[in-house]
Amino acid sequence: MGQKAPKNVILLIGDGMGVSQIYAGLTANRGHLNLERMKVIGFHKNQASDNYVTDSAAGATAFATGKQTYNGAIGLDSLKVPSVTLLEMAEQKGLSTGLVSTCDITDATPSSFIAHQLKRSMHEEIALDFMKTPVDVVIGGGRKYFEKRKDGMNLLDTLRKKGYQVQSTLDVDGITKGPLVALYAEENPIKVMEGRGDALLKSTKKSLEILHQNKKGFFVMIEGSQIDWGGHANDTDYIITEMVDFDKSIGYALDFAAKDKETLVVITADHETGGFALMGGNMKTGEVKGAFTTKGHTGQMIPVFAYGPGAEVFGGIYNNYDIFTKIKLALKLGQK
Amino acid sequence: MGQKAPKNVILLIGDGMGVSQIYAGLTANRGHLNLERMKVIGFHKNQASDNYVTDSAAGATAFATGKQTYNGAIGLDSLKVPSVTLLEMAEQKGLSTGLVSTCDITDATPSSFIAHQLKRSMHEEIALDFMKTPVDVVIGGGRKYFEKRKDGMNLLDTLRKKGYQVQSTLDVDGITKGPLVALYAEENPIKVMEGRGDALLKSTKKSLEILHQNKKGFFVMIEGSQIDWGGHANDTDYIITEMVDFDKSIGYALDFAAKDKETLVVITADHETGGFALMGGNMKTGEVKGAFTTKGHTGQMIPVFAYGPGAEVFGGIYNNYDIFTKIKLALKLGQK
Repeated sequence: MGQKAPKNVILLIGDGMGVSQIYAGLTANRGHLNLERMKVIGFHKNQASDNYVTDSAAGATAFATGKQTYNGAIGLDSLKVPSVTLLEMAEQKGLSTGLVSTCDITDATPSSFIAHQLKRSMHEEIALDFMKTPVDVVIGGGRKYFEKRKDGMNLLDTLRKKGYQVQSTLDVDGITKGPLVALYAEENPIKVMEGRGDALLKSTKKSLEILHQNKKGFFVMIEGSQIDWGGHANDTDYIITEMVDFDKSIGYALDFAAKDKETLVVITADHETGGFALMGGNMKTGEVKGAFTTKGHTGQMIPVFAYGPGAEVFGGIYNNYDIFTKIKLALKLGQK
Repeated sequence: MGQKAPKNVILLIGDGMGVSQIYAGLTANRGHLNLERMKVIGFHKNQASDNYVTDSAAGATAFATGKQTYNGAIGLDSLKVPSVTLLEMAEQKGLSTGLVSTCDITDATPSSFIAHQLKRSMHEEIALDFMKTPVDVVIGGGRKYFEKRKDGMNLLDTLRKKGYQVQSTLDVDGITKGPLVALYAEENPIKVMEGRGDALLKSTKKSLEILHQNKKGFFVMIEGSQIDWGGHANDTDYIITEMVDFDKSIGYALDFAAKDKETLVVITADHETGGFALMGGNMKTGEVKGAFTTKGHTGQMIPVFAYGPGAEVFGGIYNNYDIFTKIKLALKLGQK
């Protein structure tokens, strides 16, 4: 499988998912995760241009555009100049594209792949940027930034006029092809612990079902958004439940890639959140005892896991923005 | 280089070296470590048989013998039965062997490769076990356990009678072949911050110079012992200085392997110490701001880095005791 180039790339980002978050999930899941099926592992250094400790905006912008930038930047480089993203390049090449999250789809991680704004807090401006690129599948929260806006516009109507199937729920079983925008929560979707159920897995399945229909290939970014929020809350149970939930989508993506044989799966995080440490645990009962050093992010290097054709180049230690280049080369983006 | 079997294995263990310890060293060293030259990366799970959080004894015994065991065990399995070690198997096969540390050579990590005792605190019994295996190079601290013993024996005299060159300093420039026992400190060697200088690098160079003379090959375990103690002390500067010191031996080992082309280099840790997190830092100035959750160890998975012939099998996620099997197979130990 080494030499062949992939036709599709699934980039799975576990926000705030450092080594301890992964291992807490593995422990809670009684000793195993789908993530263990990955054989190629690397680490990325993730410093922002203006801070040793990155935020999700600078982190995702590095993945999306190959540029080291300042905290808060959405798709802009450190000089605040818009930089073309992997998703935009994939669209230009005729690939299908998708963005899936368990937070506002206008939040930092997903939006950095499609928007170009000075600050991550500019949700309504970011939502407008979604109108500029013909992304094929968008599933997440944050519906209010599209339909209850200060400028009075209803971007969901705009999307409908463009031909999108627009959903305000995850009742998408009857939808068999794109384009699809499913914003199933007014703001951020709820936690797994509060009953989100298999929303992320369902989103993952539907996005791959639709995107896979394009013979030219696809690029999709799927985010397990709330692992990060468990870290910010210094809540071990929150981390664990979101990690195990994210791992279900990892398993589905790996099954898809194993069957498809033309799909590169890349799994990583933007940064670690919480200075989370495993003080104790039990692989048989799934008990995890965590401790934290901060309510914010930390600066440690972050693991990268790769599977499928082109996976080999993700071994070793490199910068977070090198992931852009590796995916760009794998999909031959920007080439004629 | 994929298919060829290695003749030599250099196992470098950074005690207590989790991901944050590595990255603190990389930051302090202004953005780079020799460790970054490693392209094959894995993780090991490291739970002890009686505890989610391992100690160095159970951790090193897992590497040395392939058995998951209880905290404190030196070369014994969980039923307290002695288990043959990689070093003993290498000796049996006619390879040269070595143990190098920057702590008492009778401390848990080095001794688990050559001794079999119920508890890691049994330093004098462990020293006696060194008499039973014709190890070729031993460099570290803990001289008192060999010559100032409750039983009145002087094991350094015993070693001399066996033909060893016995040194109580690191003045080993004139020594060009083995066997060599250099115990350059009465107890534990001092910290780098207190003036240990390049003792570990010098030990690494001398051990490889001697061991490399055996055409059948060699196995050596080289430990950066005090990264762990920096974690126990919750002392970021202590961690950083010991990490950067350990990385110099990593660099030397990689240069050796790159030239030799028959040497597999494996770098890992037994566990993480301190619940150490990187709260801030500066790649240009080398400043590191650390925080801790504990004075003890934590249970997170630990990275493994491999280079040279046979490195490929160290990708992925596996148990710490699988490292025994991987090295055993690489050196064809226990085979005729």
